[in-house]
Amino acid sequence: MSDQQQYLIIASHLREAIQSGELQPGDKLPSEARLSQQFMSSRGTVRHALEKLRAEGLISSHQGRRSQVLLPALTQDFDSVVSFSQRCQEAGKTPGERIHSREMIDAGPRLAVQLQCSSSASVLALVRVRLMDNTPTMVERIYFPEEIASHLSDYQSSSGSMYQHLVERGVEISHAHSTVTATAADADEAQALGVAPNSPLFVVNQCVYTADGQPVWCSEQHYLPELASFSINNVKERPSPSFFTPGRA
Amino acid sequence: MSDQQQYLIIASHLREAIQSGELQPGDKLPSEARLSQQFMSSRGTVRHALEKLRAEGLISSHQGRRSQVLLPALTQDFDSVVSFSQRCQEAGKTPGERIHSREMIDAGPRLAVQLQCSSSASVLALVRVRLMDNTPTMVERIYFPEEIASHLSDYQSSSGSMYQHLVERGVEISHAHSTVTATAADADEAQALGVAPNSPLFVVNQCVYTADGQPVWCSEQHYLPELASFSINNVKERPSPSFFTPGRA
Repeated sequence: MSDQQQYLIIASHLREAIQSGELQPGDKLPSEARLSQQFMSSRGTVRHALEKLRAEGLISSHQGRRSQVLLPALTQDFDSVVSFSQRCQEAGKTPGERIHSREMIDAGPRLAVQLQCSSSASVLALVRVRLMDNTPTMVERIYFPEEIASHLSDYQSSSGSMYQHLVERGVEISHAHSTVTATAADADEAQALGVAPNSPLFVVNQCVYTADGQPVWCSEQHYLPELASFSINNVKERPSPSFFTPGRA
Repeated sequence: MSDQQQYLIIASHLREAIQSGELQPGDKLPSEARLSQQFMSSRGTVRHALEKLRAEGLISSHQGRRSQVLLPALTQDFDSVVSFSQRCQEAGKTPGERIHSREMIDAGPRLAVQLQCSSSASVLALVRVRLMDNTPTMVERIYFPEEIASHLSDYQSSSGSMYQHLVERGVEISHAHSTVTATAADADEAQALGVAPNSPLFVVNQCVYTADGQPVWCSEQHYLPELASFSINNVKERPSPSFFTPGRA
């Protein structure tokens, strides 16, 4: 077996031990020598696996000492990052949606940049309320370029998973960029979510792309803050994959 | 030079090319063969460097094809993740603070868990307004266990960097766990930040630890949302280091 596969197997095994609580924050990992014996791998391969867990913020990086479990594993599959339905299902909740409007609009200058099209291009715009166990949880404004919209003409779903629908139609969704902040509920959102106007909402702005870098959708998700949060681990000497700006991104 | 160092140098070189815009989203990276020639390294070392960039969400993971730059680099030093002052300075702004209160309190049940102490242990509690170019930006409630508080008895700073102060006193800060969401400004926060009561604020709850897993502080940071946001890149087949829950963390 090549190092390329073997180090991933070792990393995955250790990650599961952390996720399951078998290894707790503060626990020391076995030594490199012991891990290399246990997995019948070279020290280099074991180091490669540990490096990966360090990059994920799971274990400490002190050279020459045994690595320590820092924090509980905070990992999430890509499907769950981009799919509200998927996240609900993983939490044992039933996802749903209420579509408020669905229309073709001109992209205009802002969507033209996000969807890499001209300002006069047609864009499918949906406003929908996402439900979790029938409870309104989030108002979403989602925009699809025309080529993607063509896959959605027959979209019908009780769960609301456009992601799943597009994957089944062969759209290869590959990566996403998300920015989170807060905003005040407007009158429509307040009504849809059952809160007072101007109540605080947790905002996730997300753009999703194919492997070729073509935009699949851009969405503005406004959540009830008690039903959504976002967590991250950061470790010194490891650059974080996230960015926290003074100022709106 | 060992692979352990060499792959970091290759990754760092490519990351800088992405950060500087020399390599743009959509651009293909040079082939593994060409990179291994350019850096006088083995193919294995080049692959190790590319693996690291994939884990950071910067490049695509399609095996057998040349990797593509996915997104602009979103990396941030650990110092900037945990230090508001550091983030201001990097943005060319002057950080400052106004301390509203500073007192020793009993930990109580919630802080006892976060600071790993007994409920009756003494904790230093500070409420302060953080300023950016003299503009109120964030209200922070920050709590220190007694051993750490002893390093802060002579704390005086115009910039407000308790992080820098503790580092200079030899406290080895190693890792952090942060959760972000939204909340409504209470009356005091509204007045301090110059907004109407119940205005939406962006929340960052952060616990910071030494390499031995000892808590250094826990803080609740409530930002004006137009002055703070948080961004992340996610790539399919790569577990994200973050976690997005349906429900409060």
